[in-house]
Amino acid sequence: MKKLNNLQKKLGHTFNDEALLVRALTHRSAGSRHNERLEFLGDSILSMVIADALFHRFPKVNEGDMSRMRATLVREKTLAELARDFELGEYLILGPGELKSGGYRRESILADAVEALIGAIYLDSGIERITQLLLSWYDGRLNDIQPGVEQKDPKTRLQELLQGKRKPLPSYEVVNVIGEAHNQKFTVHCIVDGLVEPVVGVGTSRRKAEQAAAEQALDTLL
Amino acid sequence: MKKLNNLQKKLGHTFNDEALLVRALTHRSAGSRHNERLEFLGDSILSMVIADALFHRFPKVNEGDMSRMRATLVREKTLAELARDFELGEYLILGPGELKSGGYRRESILADAVEALIGAIYLDSGIERITQLLLSWYDGRLNDIQPGVEQKDPKTRLQELLQGKRKPLPSYEVVNVIGEAHNQKFTVHCIVDGLVEPVVGVGTSRRKAEQAAAEQALDTLL
Repeated sequence: MKKLNNLQKKLGHTFNDEALLVRALTHRSAGSRHNERLEFLGDSILSMVIADALFHRFPKVNEGDMSRMRATLVREKTLAELARDFELGEYLILGPGELKSGGYRRESILADAVEALIGAIYLDSGIERITQLLLSWYDGRLNDIQPGVEQKDPKTRLQELLQGKRKPLPSYEVVNVIGEAHNQKFTVHCIVDGLVEPVVGVGTSRRKAEQAAAEQALDTLL
Repeated sequence: MKKLNNLQKKLGHTFNDEALLVRALTHRSAGSRHNERLEFLGDSILSMVIADALFHRFPKVNEGDMSRMRATLVREKTLAELARDFELGEYLILGPGELKSGGYRRESILADAVEALIGAIYLDSGIERITQLLLSWYDGRLNDIQPGVEQKDPKTRLQELLQGKRKPLPSYEVVNVIGEAHNQKFTVHCIVDGLVEPVVGVGTSRRKAEQAAAEQALDTLL
């Protein structure tokens, strides 16, 4: 229990019901009483609290920019950083398979556990408490984030990644368009040096399909 | 103002700040003080309140089923039904372009306005008030919904749709696989009688890619 007390200090929250904390730390590989339902709940609470914080901090910013800032703040990478601040890895309850698999899925397991913790704290102590905690966890990140700065679109990021590796720029080609004027679906191939097959993106406009393809290419390359 | 009072009666909420109500009703076609920021906020509140309600009503249901039930409850079609219950169409503030365009985009404008109203009521009167209202708006739907019943997967729905029209079943073909063992992207073509081009789906497994393609096909056909 001493160990869990250390974690609770780092989180800034002492659970009334410590069973909720244990549940939030339990990956599905460790048994049926795992954290996935808490993760579902926590994910929605996090989205809401961050949406609310951005809404008030950026009174002039449009919903597209707010949505991109939120995506940056709640993505797996950010949640895994929070998890590392909490040294959450030391407290995770994993089954033997996951213990062996090591680093590969680690990032997503850590991020999911942070969402589960958010759900658990909400159930333990209510919406005001988890809101207050989330704002303290995110204080620096909310102060740093700016609309349109860290939220470069996937095509720009892919281009910069390839330039950084001194590789040729990607090329995009529309390979399919279906549907009528106001309801079209575009399919685009993105050809990237180093990937054998073209990457596919689908969207309601050429631009969106290209961005989707670039996102896929980034997922594959990173 | 009498008209707005009628709407407030239907919503079950009288605004302290009626300017928030007017803003929530204002589509972007009607000017710069439109409802899209409120919609961003309201969307996240709705997701959270419904997640919380499902979490407590279905203590044994896994996160996948909760997620599918939520998707059913917060999708455009459901929000547009709520809008019709409120006769929201009579109160929307639209620009001349949208007024002329008539039915086509109506469903999404109504649904977006409901989300904006949720954001506006939250700003007007806080999280407890909007939670209470949402639970009353959704009372019947929350009582009716069952895991796995209305949440048939896209392939099943596509098959049933085509069978209902006495058309041939769709066929699926994997056309591309990229990435290494644990990080693959599958691209699938779904061929549907009546659509000239195959519909494309992408996913991290063959099954997911087929479901994505079926979803695209349903979007195009419905």
